[in-house]
Amino acid sequence: MSKEEVTEEGEVFSHGQQPRDYSEPAPAPLFDAGELSLWSFYRAVIAEFIASLLFLYITVATVIGYQKESNPCDTIGVLGIAWSFGGMIFILVYSTAGISGGHINPAVTFGLFLARKVSLVRAVAYIVAQCLGAVCGVGLVKGVMKHYYESSPGGGANTVAAGYSNGTALGAEIIGTFVLVYTVFSATDPKRNARDSHVPVLAPLPIGFAVFVVHLATIPMTGTGINPARSLGAAVIFDNHNVWDDQWIFWVGPLVGALAAAIYHEHILRAAAIKALGSFIAR
Amino acid sequence: MSKEEVTEEGEVFSHGQQPRDYSEPAPAPLFDAGELSLWSFYRAVIAEFIASLLFLYITVATVIGYQKESNPCDTIGVLGIAWSFGGMIFILVYSTAGISGGHINPAVTFGLFLARKVSLVRAVAYIVAQCLGAVCGVGLVKGVMKHYYESSPGGGANTVAAGYSNGTALGAEIIGTFVLVYTVFSATDPKRNARDSHVPVLAPLPIGFAVFVVHLATIPMTGTGINPARSLGAAVIFDNHNVWDDQWIFWVGPLVGALAAAIYHEHILRAAAIKALGSFIAR
Amino acid sequence: MSKEEVTEEGEVFSHGQQPRDYSEPAPAPLFDAGELSLWSFYRAVIAEFIASLLFLYITVATVIGYQKESNPCDTIGVLGIAWSFGGMIFILVYSTAGISGGHINPAVTFGLFLARKVSLVRAVAYIVAQCLGAVCGVGLVKGVMKHYYESSPGGGANTVAAGYSNGTALGAEIIGTFVLVYTVFSATDPKRNARDSHVPVLAPLPIGFAVFVVHLATIPMTGTGINPARSLGAAVIFDNHNVWDDQWIFWVGPLVGALAAAIYHEHILRAAAIKALGSFIAR
Amino acid sequence: MSKEEVTEEGEVFSHGQQPRDYSEPAPAPLFDAGELSLWSFYRAVIAEFIASLLFLYITVATVIGYQKESNPCDTIGVLGIAWSFGGMIFILVYSTAGISGGHINPAVTFGLFLARKVSLVRAVAYIVAQCLGAVCGVGLVKGVMKHYYESSPGGGANTVAAGYSNGTALGAEIIGTFVLVYTVFSATDPKRNARDSHVPVLAPLPIGFAVFVVHLATIPMTGTGINPARSLGAAVIFDNHNVWDDQWIFWVGPLVGALAAAIYHEHILRAAAIKALGSFIAR
Repeated sequence: MSKEEVTEEGEVFSHGQQPRDYSEPAPAPLFDAGELSLWSFYRAVIAEFIASLLFLYITVATVIGYQKESNPCDTIGVLGIAWSFGGMIFILVYSTAGISGGHINPAVTFGLFLARKVSLVRAVAYIVAQCLGAVCGVGLVKGVMKHYYESSPGGGANTVAAGYSNGTALGAEIIGTFVLVYTVFSATDPKRNARDSHVPVLAPLPIGFAVFVVHLATIPMTGTGINPARSLGAAVIFDNHNVWDDQWIFWVGPLVGALAAAIYHEHILRAAAIKALGSFIAR
Repeated sequence: MSKEEVTEEGEVFSHGQQPRDYSEPAPAPLFDAGELSLWSFYRAVIAEFIASLLFLYITVATVIGYQKESNPCDTIGVLGIAWSFGGMIFILVYSTAGISGGHINPAVTFGLFLARKVSLVRAVAYIVAQCLGAVCGVGLVKGVMKHYYESSPGGGANTVAAGYSNGTALGAEIIGTFVLVYTVFSATDPKRNARDSHVPVLAPLPIGFAVFVVHLATIPMTGTGINPARSLGAAVIFDNHNVWDDQWIFWVGPLVGALAAAIYHEHILRAAAIKALGSFIAR
Repeated sequence: MSKEEVTEEGEVFSHGQQPRDYSEPAPAPLFDAGELSLWSFYRAVIAEFIASLLFLYITVATVIGYQKESNPCDTIGVLGIAWSFGGMIFILVYSTAGISGGHINPAVTFGLFLARKVSLVRAVAYIVAQCLGAVCGVGLVKGVMKHYYESSPGGGANTVAAGYSNGTALGAEIIGTFVLVYTVFSATDPKRNARDSHVPVLAPLPIGFAVFVVHLATIPMTGTGINPARSLGAAVIFDNHNVWDDQWIFWVGPLVGALAAAIYHEHILRAAAIKALGSFIAR
Repeated sequence: MSKEEVTEEGEVFSHGQQPRDYSEPAPAPLFDAGELSLWSFYRAVIAEFIASLLFLYITVATVIGYQKESNPCDTIGVLGIAWSFGGMIFILVYSTAGISGGHINPAVTFGLFLARKVSLVRAVAYIVAQCLGAVCGVGLVKGVMKHYYESSPGGGANTVAAGYSNGTALGAEIIGTFVLVYTVFSATDPKRNARDSHVPVLAPLPIGFAVFVVHLATIPMTGTGINPARSLGAAVIFDNHNVWDDQWIFWVGPLVGALAAAIYHEHILRAAAIKALGSFIAR
């Protein structure tokens, strides 16, 4: 928060090589066949599946329970729904970070893949597991709350709300996902982890809060996706024409938002940019 | 959150023995007569009793205060009730973790017993203390709020809400308790404690949030048990026919949920599974 | 959370002397004339005054802003008021813990004095500073919100709500303060600080949450005191006959609650009790 | 929280020189031309721009989404708006603290400049970046929510609410900003960072909570500024006569509040005051 932290890392352009007090991991290979022989790989995929299942089960059950009451004052309200999404991400990232990295979201996996933090093999396996887990989670809600799920107005699925255009919804998904994935990048940056004690210790909490505050802003617009597995899971189980029509927005938006966050973090905020921009400014 | 954390713990199946940077405690014996001569054992039982008493007193008083208002907008709402349960678990786990482990819930004690983290003697003593504490806590609410307690619609007790079947309620209790006990296992895993600094430092907070988010989802279905002592305490003091009829759901559900979480954590996520599953996959 | 933590501290009664990995400070002297020549003493007293002033200003302004709206749905609601009290205590304990210990409450100071953590001189000086700060804080609200303060139904003061007896209110204040002061004792115990990393790091957060959850439970009964300076400050500025009649409850209740928490923590949970109770049980 | 921490830092006036277990950075120079040749300087300015943009985008979108519903019970309510502002500051301070110090607020930058924690050059660059970012953030909301933004009653801008005088609003802004900037000073004090483990680790959380609780108190009065960039950004985009008339309040108030917090922290709570006040008291 203060200047000394800032100047500590102030690299003079011309000098280039500076000593480092942290270890930057090598970029993940695109294809890492060795991973496939590790039990830890399968365990991580299982953890992503179960976490996505629990995430969708708890949050969509909360949405259906809210929608079934005629008087909103008798419910947890829209604020409670936002807490459900944010709170679940907090506890699931806390619980699975040490097993799989705690992505629980294809947009997060895609962003970390772009930054070469996970291999292509792992990224694909995670995204498949997240989508299957999400479908099972919403399926479980339908099984448990049968009547109420089927009579609910939206089944917990993401659609563009009346009064908003597709472009608006897409923009909202892009920026919302940017906020989330930017927070994830900040939380997992080894350079910051080494310097600021709050970065590794609090990590799951700001990630959960990012999900919470984005829901506060965009529930009225789209119900808030910023997680393609969450949007797909509800779409598969609710299986409604309008929901399928809008589904692309909840894939394109989050993936573009994750791409933007990866570029911002890797090429503006991180050392990678020093030489390129340094030489640009030096001109 | 990133790949390097994951591959750090990537054990190749065939190699078996890997060096460890943490100490795995020996499994707790089933019967540990020595415990009974330790003051720390009795102190822990007292701490579980007092924590359960305070938990039920604060939360049930909150429920009764909510129910007595005719206009729900003048109250803390259902969201406030969920915060009361989650917030109390956060501060009680924070305060008693160093004394008794901070279970405050027979389902948590049962799960940790199944994983051989506590002895049978300790598990039984804790569960008895938790149930007695819960009865006294709700009794205190009845003493303090006499008229309002007796005229409240539900007395803070758990029942299956109109429109839901017993099977639905049982399923909701199983998954809800799974979320809680899975979070507890993640928070108390010595392997993860050694690796990720957020695990031991934040521990009581995600446990409290797990209770909070499960309440958001299942208050409309059952009032949310996921803690047999909480359900029993309110049942004993409210002493209503319907409440007693449904009581079994709030014991079977949480105990099955805790069993599932113990199996998931110990046999899927933890090292214990490596050999068995490794040899299975290697086939 | 698990058994190994518990048995680590399991002292066998008969052995008495055990090695310690933490330093237990000597009890504070009753009268410590030396303190009066330290700038740090006056600085601490000033910090308690300013923190109490800010606490009452923000929280009572929040209460008055809530009461002036005719439609409660247009306000932050009772839940928001509870967050205001809990949130302010969180940030003020965070900010002043290193200066004065961050009591901001005569009941907390009284509890820590009983446990010989602060001298009598310091306790008296803190309590006077807290009360003066609270009066100034509510005075500032009256100055800023003049018309709205004077026309508000309760002026942010604590009284026993219609339908509750004085005995009920007293009981609610005792148990509510017990929850708060017990959390404070847990957070400041040097033995637990040395053992569990979550204890010192999170400390201000569970203390703030304790204030939050007690408000959820007892706002409908008394508006929630559990802090005699808070109750006195609002009483002095609102200066209403009924408020003065009930004022004793908001002093006797919190001080008794703090006494009970001090006894529970020092004589049941802490080492001090080992010998006395050990010999009792050994009989 | 306890006496021993306090007496540890108890310096006797007459002795002067005391050993230190922390390093106090040298005051930042007023003009530091060297900064301008560091990539880290430009990166920090970009980070302040982007963080301010995201802050205003998410929070103002939340406000507009709230205002467009006819039934406040169908929305996140005023409480949700307060969470949006506080939650965003939490995640943005968490994410940008290691890059720019995470000010995201001209009042914070001004306070840290007064305390000589940042140079004048840096302070000016940050404030310009924050204001431009805020304008772009609200502009983005207008772009995305076009119709709803234009028909909203206030456009997310700060004005003095009916029933309050300009003096009242100015006082509320001064004290509200004092609470925020005092928390920031506490969080970034190297002396406290070295002593209390909760100070550096939690830092972004109490700063976010400070923003949250001040919003609970002053949304009904002014909508809550305590951040001139936030007030300017909404004013530029909403471009309403009344908003511009009141704009000075949202610059003078926060800057005076930051000045008061800097004086309180640097000259009352910190060592700087020891000699001056010591000699005063010794008279």
